[in-house]
Amino acid sequence: MAKLNWGMIGGGEGSQIGPAHRLGALADGHFNLAAGALDHRPEVGRAFAQSLGVVPDRAYGDWQEMLEGERNRADRCDLVTVATPNSTHFEITKAFLEAEFHVLCEKPMTMTVEEGEEIVRIAERTGRICAVNYCYSAYPMIRQARAMVRNGDIGKVRLVVTNFSHGHHADAVDADNPRIRWRYDPATAGVSGQFADCGIHALHMASFICDDEVEMMSADFASTIPSRVLEDDAMVNFQMSKGTVGRLWTSSVAIGRQHGFDIQVFGETGGFRWASEQPNQLIYTPLGGRTQIIEKGENGLYDDAKRLSRVAIAHPEGFPLAVANIYCDLADAIRGEKRDGLPTAPSGLRSMMAVHTAVASARAGGTWMDARPPMFR
Amino acid sequence: MAKLNWGMIGGGEGSQIGPAHRLGALADGHFNLAAGALDHRPEVGRAFAQSLGVVPDRAYGDWQEMLEGERNRADRCDLVTVATPNSTHFEITKAFLEAEFHVLCEKPMTMTVEEGEEIVRIAERTGRICAVNYCYSAYPMIRQARAMVRNGDIGKVRLVVTNFSHGHHADAVDADNPRIRWRYDPATAGVSGQFADCGIHALHMASFICDDEVEMMSADFASTIPSRVLEDDAMVNFQMSKGTVGRLWTSSVAIGRQHGFDIQVFGETGGFRWASEQPNQLIYTPLGGRTQIIEKGENGLYDDAKRLSRVAIAHPEGFPLAVANIYCDLADAIRGEKRDGLPTAPSGLRSMMAVHTAVASARAGGTWMDARPPMFR
Amino acid sequence: MAKLNWGMIGGGEGSQIGPAHRLGALADGHFNLAAGALDHRPEVGRAFAQSLGVVPDRAYGDWQEMLEGERNRADRCDLVTVATPNSTHFEITKAFLEAEFHVLCEKPMTMTVEEGEEIVRIAERTGRICAVNYCYSAYPMIRQARAMVRNGDIGKVRLVVTNFSHGHHADAVDADNPRIRWRYDPATAGVSGQFADCGIHALHMASFICDDEVEMMSADFASTIPSRVLEDDAMVNFQMSKGTVGRLWTSSVAIGRQHGFDIQVFGETGGFRWASEQPNQLIYTPLGGRTQIIEKGENGLYDDAKRLSRVAIAHPEGFPLAVANIYCDLADAIRGEKRDGLPTAPSGLRSMMAVHTAVASARAGGTWMDARPPMFR
Amino acid sequence: MAKLNWGMIGGGEGSQIGPAHRLGALADGHFNLAAGALDHRPEVGRAFAQSLGVVPDRAYGDWQEMLEGERNRADRCDLVTVATPNSTHFEITKAFLEAEFHVLCEKPMTMTVEEGEEIVRIAERTGRICAVNYCYSAYPMIRQARAMVRNGDIGKVRLVVTNFSHGHHADAVDADNPRIRWRYDPATAGVSGQFADCGIHALHMASFICDDEVEMMSADFASTIPSRVLEDDAMVNFQMSKGTVGRLWTSSVAIGRQHGFDIQVFGETGGFRWASEQPNQLIYTPLGGRTQIIEKGENGLYDDAKRLSRVAIAHPEGFPLAVANIYCDLADAIRGEKRDGLPTAPSGLRSMMAVHTAVASARAGGTWMDARPPMFR
Repeated sequence: MAKLNWGMIGGGEGSQIGPAHRLGALADGHFNLAAGALDHRPEVGRAFAQSLGVVPDRAYGDWQEMLEGERNRADRCDLVTVATPNSTHFEITKAFLEAEFHVLCEKPMTMTVEEGEEIVRIAERTGRICAVNYCYSAYPMIRQARAMVRNGDIGKVRLVVTNFSHGHHADAVDADNPRIRWRYDPATAGVSGQFADCGIHALHMASFICDDEVEMMSADFASTIPSRVLEDDAMVNFQMSKGTVGRLWTSSVAIGRQHGFDIQVFGETGGFRWASEQPNQLIYTPLGGRTQIIEKGENGLYDDAKRLSRVAIAHPEGFPLAVANIYCDLADAIRGEKRDGLPTAPSGLRSMMAVHTAVASARAGGTWMDARPPMFR
Repeated sequence: MAKLNWGMIGGGEGSQIGPAHRLGALADGHFNLAAGALDHRPEVGRAFAQSLGVVPDRAYGDWQEMLEGERNRADRCDLVTVATPNSTHFEITKAFLEAEFHVLCEKPMTMTVEEGEEIVRIAERTGRICAVNYCYSAYPMIRQARAMVRNGDIGKVRLVVTNFSHGHHADAVDADNPRIRWRYDPATAGVSGQFADCGIHALHMASFICDDEVEMMSADFASTIPSRVLEDDAMVNFQMSKGTVGRLWTSSVAIGRQHGFDIQVFGETGGFRWASEQPNQLIYTPLGGRTQIIEKGENGLYDDAKRLSRVAIAHPEGFPLAVANIYCDLADAIRGEKRDGLPTAPSGLRSMMAVHTAVASARAGGTWMDARPPMFR
Repeated sequence: MAKLNWGMIGGGEGSQIGPAHRLGALADGHFNLAAGALDHRPEVGRAFAQSLGVVPDRAYGDWQEMLEGERNRADRCDLVTVATPNSTHFEITKAFLEAEFHVLCEKPMTMTVEEGEEIVRIAERTGRICAVNYCYSAYPMIRQARAMVRNGDIGKVRLVVTNFSHGHHADAVDADNPRIRWRYDPATAGVSGQFADCGIHALHMASFICDDEVEMMSADFASTIPSRVLEDDAMVNFQMSKGTVGRLWTSSVAIGRQHGFDIQVFGETGGFRWASEQPNQLIYTPLGGRTQIIEKGENGLYDDAKRLSRVAIAHPEGFPLAVANIYCDLADAIRGEKRDGLPTAPSGLRSMMAVHTAVASARAGGTWMDARPPMFR
Repeated sequence: MAKLNWGMIGGGEGSQIGPAHRLGALADGHFNLAAGALDHRPEVGRAFAQSLGVVPDRAYGDWQEMLEGERNRADRCDLVTVATPNSTHFEITKAFLEAEFHVLCEKPMTMTVEEGEEIVRIAERTGRICAVNYCYSAYPMIRQARAMVRNGDIGKVRLVVTNFSHGHHADAVDADNPRIRWRYDPATAGVSGQFADCGIHALHMASFICDDEVEMMSADFASTIPSRVLEDDAMVNFQMSKGTVGRLWTSSVAIGRQHGFDIQVFGETGGFRWASEQPNQLIYTPLGGRTQIIEKGENGLYDDAKRLSRVAIAHPEGFPLAVANIYCDLADAIRGEKRDGLPTAPSGLRSMMAVHTAVASARAGGTWMDARPPMFR
């Protein structure tokens, strides 16, 4: 099977996210890095792309140049990844979708609900894939969890409880560190801090596993480090369309929680929990029965869980391969095998709607508000 | 040191709570069971008391008889435990306090805030101890946690997050089981179900460890099993007087959580977490440092943690001995050594105020409300 | 049910083991402390016994005095606990058994195999119970494990692997501390250090759960702190009469293992593991199936596991109540209800034979040797 | 930096090990798959290689053809991986080394000690790298552990205890399954079953972390499924050159242990433990201090641990990236930056010597024997 051509925008030397995408795209041999505009400094970006094996005429200085260069090539990129600063995601994603490229956009897909709706419409119109990198949902055991819910293994879901709380922004002295400060400053981060950064991963996960969407939401935000304008801790209650009750806590001052992303789902006939620091187990309890450990790689897993695992039971697979799983699903989808686990533009839109709704609710003292994007009401 | 005389009301044959109190009172040799009115059926109670070694004239048919019988004895009870149905706690506790007995009352201390305020006043006036059995707070590692907060080991507390969520009432078929149904029926349980049953343990624990009191509260209640009038799942946000933000989730439909009581406390310079299923460890992380496991019995623990442990490091001590620790503190207090870790009437009152405030807030869609008892404003 | 009269020898003020026995005997209300010879200093022992509520004429100065005083009383002790220094266990136990008292002896029951055989014969002849305090075997989940093996739930047992390795004697500087040094000095400890101290608990546990006895044994001993004459680390391989292979590691220099006692049992159709630091769970895996967590207090446990638990599922019960379970079994046995889980003199004898066999094997470079006591061959 | 040319022998379609090597080689962009002889069926291998992007004239039918084809190319392979059946490793590795290719050989490097010594000599003579895929040693936290030992962070190592015990060959019915049976049949597996398969990983790890070599060894082997000629359970005691005592248990009938590879190292001033199922944490306890959790990605790790991690703290990295770390070290070494963590031919030789010594010792009833390869005595 011929490799697909892959292009990347952003993710230059020294970025965290660049290597994660490159490993994700390359690890399983589906893609080769054919083009790139990797840095906001054109020459630096061109040089870095070439050091990664990109041929000189596809090592671009900026995304506009790349769009022009790739648009009409016979061997043009099959997929473009957008891993630039948050505020630029919309513009770049829109341009490449309109030029009929498939796109994988880093989260958040946009900064406003209106932009999100626009991306959804463009993706629909062009028929291109606009994936959003909610990579946690690509862990095999999360796919197993979703399949279990869909197959009724835990009955109707009553309750979902999820946390994404770490302590890496807990140092008040460090609050002025530019690498941290921008996240809590409306000028750079927009309307929300921690909820927009981590909370939407958790909210997406709740929707993803429950195979349902958030309808109503009530939020409480706190800036536990007083100098921060935006929240560093948030609690969000929500209700989903099928009646599921949701609880979501996210924090960046929870010292001692390293990654701190976990989810618990409780249905009429069973419950399970998963934690991102031990991603290869799903802890499941049937109603009235004993707690069981479902292991990645065990016999009898659902198809998605099987397909997205590479090594035998109890050989752990970690975060970079969850990202790689997104690329596996993308490769399959581009080649014509639809992968409905792939998070796409509607998910990106719903996240943005959730951010704006949570902010409004928190400002109104926790009033319950409609969290559905206008176009989906 | 002579043993203290102990009397018990309720906790008859077949009750869960009776054996826990008897073990708690007897285990360390501080008390002997001198008197009892153990059953609502007078003859059954008298016979059972005698089978436990109570002399016939102190094996009473009901609490009124016991009050009369004990009131004027030279060797009258030093302590009376009230372990009767919830709705009778107020009346019995009041009567024994007024007769100048020390009392240990099961939770909830009362059913209304007004009753709670009355008990506080009587205890103050008589100078008698009115303890309330928030026994989890007597685990050595909880005393360690409280001492760490008081000593500034984690700095000012920014955030406390606590859960008390189990799955033992999750079977819809079982919802009609009388042992479960009464908890969700206002006629028997009062205004609140799960929050009043388990939530107040968690809320007390948050106040206890943080050495602070809840001021404001916002609640969301759900009856995830639709036939239930009262909530089986609740989320409560709160603020404490020193500015600490609180998050409390309690549920009885969380299948797979067996006991499900845990607490995380995050301060300016450190954080820790504790879980009731592994109560002998406190997991502590200093800001910028590595997570450490503080073990019951290790060298250098604070006094309360040392005093309330019986066996060497890594020899677990469990729930029954946490109850016994309450009796140790009571024995010390009765003998004149004040134990400020002992939960007393003001804590019982605050719990009741919290229950009524949470109910009102949930009914009002999550509006923030003052959760301080009127007498403490 | 009238309480039984209990007498104690040793376990005076300041000892670790005295409080554990008193709590064990008193917690469930089966015994009262009727007599005692608690200290090697007669006056100190008499005073301490009286402070614990023993009447003056049963507060003895030494064990001989106690034997004389109790021998002919109508209300003489129903049970005598021997918690004196190891080298005196044989003499005292023998004397009380011959006077037809039931005895609970601390481990090791004797210092030699010959003494062990003598105790077995005396117990048989007098029909008195001679229990030995292998208290770990009285945890509910260990009783569950044993019942599972007996009921064939894991098929024929192929393999048992057990460790009792802690790090509390790892400080070379501390090796001269008299509280530690005596354990590694043949003059005080006999032929073996760590294996005799902790290893025999593990070996007893293996036999207890597998319901089988050790036949052959090969040992490797090491003194990892060179100043020690006796071993502080030992590995023992063994074979049991039904063909089970055994592996036992015990160490006192395993820094970071706090208690460090665990056991894994593997049969033809399943396996399980248990660890003393989380004693309320038994982790079970059926052949070809998922790992399950068996919880103390869950529905459907075997009788012994049910009977020896006091509080509901997920309310932990710890080490002191495992000791109390030994006393529960003793109370039942004295009252005529046979408890076959109670470890008795043959177990004490087999431990002593194991110690001497392991020492001989280690000296011979690991040669396999017969570990059956001569009287049981 | 230009990619290195990589060739692979074996690891055809359907093999477990082929994808692991491809992911390992490709994930970080160091290598491209330039040549391959992937299957024992020439045409199948050629087709498969081409499907992976190998150009037709480098898609070989067997290793001899590949050797001839690559030997004189200007762009010949920089590295050849040997992932063929065990009994062919020696011949192929030898041939490529002699032709001055760098080689990564799967374990076991050879089937005899003599062959192992020959490979060591050839590698020395040619100056080529002969790496052996002890990939567990490339986990970041194992590199951290080794660096801690080297830096004296736990003092002189007294004791190392390691287990590699799973339950995936525990089904007696399944013992005739050809995928399992060959491992216990001398005709296919050689002199040892489970010890040669998994035990040598654990033994290598002990040497690797302790930075020391095994000198003496005593073994006990068991075939717990009686139809097996070779052992499915083994216990090995060993001594290392600096005096460290070792204990190694390996089993394939330990039902419920999924991967079951762990190691504990105890020194004079501290100890640590690591388990392959949670490979991103190293649990460390300083003498007299609290147990600490060292996290992959935390600040202040030693260089090797830092270098071989790709994503931030608490983002797990799993088994496939441990294999990738071997390829990272190889790429660095080929480019001239020596990586002393890379396991090479002497390690492969020592493993083979250990296998033969353990077999001999077990046959002799556990006699201690010299486990040093003759050439290293």
